Amino acid sequence: MTETREAASDFLARLGQFGKTGETGVTRPVYTDAWIAAVSWLQKEAQGKHMDVSVDANGTTFMSYPGSESTEIVAAGSHIDSVVNGGRYDGAYGVAAAYLAITDLYAEYGQPKKTMTAVAISEEDAARFPTTFSGSKHYAQVAETDPDIKDADGITFGQARAHAIAALPAFVTRQDQPLPSEWFELHIEQGPVLATTGIQLGVVSSICELKRFNVTLTGQANHAGTTPQHLRKDPMKAAARMITALDDYAKAVGEPLVFTVGSLTVEPGASNAIPSQVVFSIDVRHPKKAVVDDFEAKLNEQIAALTTVSGYVDSLMEPYPEVVMDERLQHQFAEICEAKGYRYQVMPSGAGHDTQIMNRKTKTAMLFVPSRDGISHSPAEYTAPEDLERGIAVLKAQLYRECY
Amino acid sequence: MTETREAASDFLARLGQFGKTGETGVTRPVYTDAWIAAVSWLQKEAQGKHMDVSVDANGTTFMSYPGSESTEIVAAGSHIDSVVNGGRYDGAYGVAAAYLAITDLYAEYGQPKKTMTAVAISEEDAARFPTTFSGSKHYAQVAETDPDIKDADGITFGQARAHAIAALPAFVTRQDQPLPSEWFELHIEQGPVLATTGIQLGVVSSICELKRFNVTLTGQANHAGTTPQHLRKDPMKAAARMITALDDYAKAVGEPLVFTVGSLTVEPGASNAIPSQVVFSIDVRHPKKAVVDDFEAKLNEQIAALTTVSGYVDSLMEPYPEVVMDERLQHQFAEICEAKGYRYQVMPSGAGHDTQIMNRKTKTAMLFVPSRDGISHSPAEYTAPEDLERGIAVLKAQLYRECY
Ligand SMILES: [Zn+2]
Ligand SMILES: [Zn+2]
Repeated sequence: MTETREAASDFLARLGQFGKTGETGVTRPVYTDAWIAAVSWLQKEAQGKHMDVSVDANGTTFMSYPGSESTEIVAAGSHIDSVVNGGRYDGAYGVAAAYLAITDLYAEYGQPKKTMTAVAISEEDAARFPTTFSGSKHYAQVAETDPDIKDADGITFGQARAHAIAALPAFVTRQDQPLPSEWFELHIEQGPVLATTGIQLGVVSSICELKRFNVTLTGQANHAGTTPQHLRKDPMKAAARMITALDDYAKAVGEPLVFTVGSLTVEPGASNAIPSQVVFSIDVRHPKKAVVDDFEAKLNEQIAALTTVSGYVDSLMEPYPEVVMDERLQHQFAEICEAKGYRYQVMPSGAGHDTQIMNRKTKTAMLFVPSRDGISHSPAEYTAPEDLERGIAVLKAQLYRECY
Repeated sequence: MTETREAASDFLARLGQFGKTGETGVTRPVYTDAWIAAVSWLQKEAQGKHMDVSVDANGTTFMSYPGSESTEIVAAGSHIDSVVNGGRYDGAYGVAAAYLAITDLYAEYGQPKKTMTAVAISEEDAARFPTTFSGSKHYAQVAETDPDIKDADGITFGQARAHAIAALPAFVTRQDQPLPSEWFELHIEQGPVLATTGIQLGVVSSICELKRFNVTLTGQANHAGTTPQHLRKDPMKAAARMITALDDYAKAVGEPLVFTVGSLTVEPGASNAIPSQVVFSIDVRHPKKAVVDDFEAKLNEQIAALTTVSGYVDSLMEPYPEVVMDERLQHQFAEICEAKGYRYQVMPSGAGHDTQIMNRKTKTAMLFVPSRDGISHSPAEYTAPEDLERGIAVLKAQLYRECY
């Protein structure tokens, strides 16, 4: 076991060299030189372990041991890209865990009955192009990314992708892969629940339904001193009341509902002027779509009830369908945790993951390891080696049950 | 009377040429070329009416008819500077009203018993230097402005002042003036009360106590999806609750208390992150200092009661003492309105005026005329000629009672 612990830390340290910023930071957006170097390194490692290595049209890497008895594929992995100035663990841990669990199983037990594939998904973190989940959407045959979208330098997604794939090692097969029958993803929690409670693993039950809105409230700018209370059309106070009412509502609904007002701007923004307009964002999440829809209805009620100011709501994203993990695979994760004596908790994922895309086409299950201080997307990301190891051990047991 | 109406409109149109921006805008910060031209024009007009014309060390213009029986001075006026892209009425109307009322009285009734002085105060609107009321503070011997403060171009107040005063007409006496025994100021309301109710004149009872604060609430930035409600330290929701609680309090206290949150900034300001910090301004006003002090106490109570986030309050200005108009002069304004059949209302001033500085040293009274749509500090400032005329007629009657 200590071997796995060292292997996991070593893998993440080596992968973290590609796009290294500062001591522990990583900047590895999709198709950049750092990304190409990371993917090339991984593919050579996999070749060294006698895996079949291929990339699909979007640059997602598949590292497989073919099955002896079935054409079914059991895949595990996560994304290999990172945000700008992110950390070593987000995405990378899921790739490391899949690679280490599968190569370990092969070393110990030889050829599996079903094909076992470790997957490094090209892009999830939307750090370079105005797209997200482009890798898993292609892999799962859900949607193709518009090749004409551009990064900040005007380079198109299509150009960058062609350049990156051409730069990968020559021995790698260029070919799209069929859908797996099961998909597993390990990921850092990106939240404080496990770290706060000292629980070692999170068995994910579902990925939260997420909706985002922009709320615009328009009143009338006026002198802060000379406009009596009853003649004011003040969108700032209306916004404060709306946010407070929605917070009261969210508290009454209870956890795991979360809603966040992360940005709020005031026009004209002078201390001696009643604002003319306030715009704020709402991010609301819950595992059940109906709960998020009810929140949206409550928001629209608030807008309809406005009197002195006017308001409207923009929906900022297409809502995803409810993402519920496969019951058998989820329970099997829990069983394995119990058998190994690991403290675990069943929990929804508040953050989005590639698994929500894979979930549309195949059976999925996810496992979280703790994030120190709940931090992600930062050089301060950290998960203790023994936590990394526990996740890999559980994944390994899961894959053994499914593939051997 | 139609003569006064035309004279007032004509005076404001001519004064509005100095610093004219666009069709009806005015940009005339203190000591600029536009200001020098406006003051020079006014001084020549006054000379043409046989007034004694002088400027004090700050460039405030005094246009007087000496009294025959007393050394007492009865002064009326307002400020001649304007904000950047302001209008023709703010300040200018009070100068015009004083000048026209006094020259009319002299033309009709000859030399007054007490000295009558029309005053064009150098600066009130803080448009160029980081100072306000520099003119009236000097005139009232309340405080001297630091000559080393600089405008955006690095020119000091002292340099600009010396340049401007040297550029004024040679016939003008350079000499500080003694305090008047009475001070009158006419001003546009800068608020919607008169325009909304159709009342023609406002007899000012007091100038509101004003306090300004910056409130800083600090929580902890975190992922909007993965941080459960009970682990959040969210300064945005705390700010919304605080503003709502203060608004409830202000509504319970009732008018004329006003409080305004005109600016609010959120860090980091991303829709998918719980904010780390929210900073917002509070502007609170009421004629009675005790009411403003109670509001401040309520604010501090709210800060002390914070649980998940921490907070503190910065006081942004020295509070002024309570400014109450002279009872006799205020009642006389009201009597005159009644005698003339003008609709008037006694009201506090929510905005600050030179009169609050003069009030520390002498008896004061103020009169408001309507501001269309309550607008000031904008090219859209407008007061109908018949409203301008009514104000001047009331001032004229007041000065007649006091000086003849
Ligand atoms: Zn991730
Ligand atoms: Zn003014």
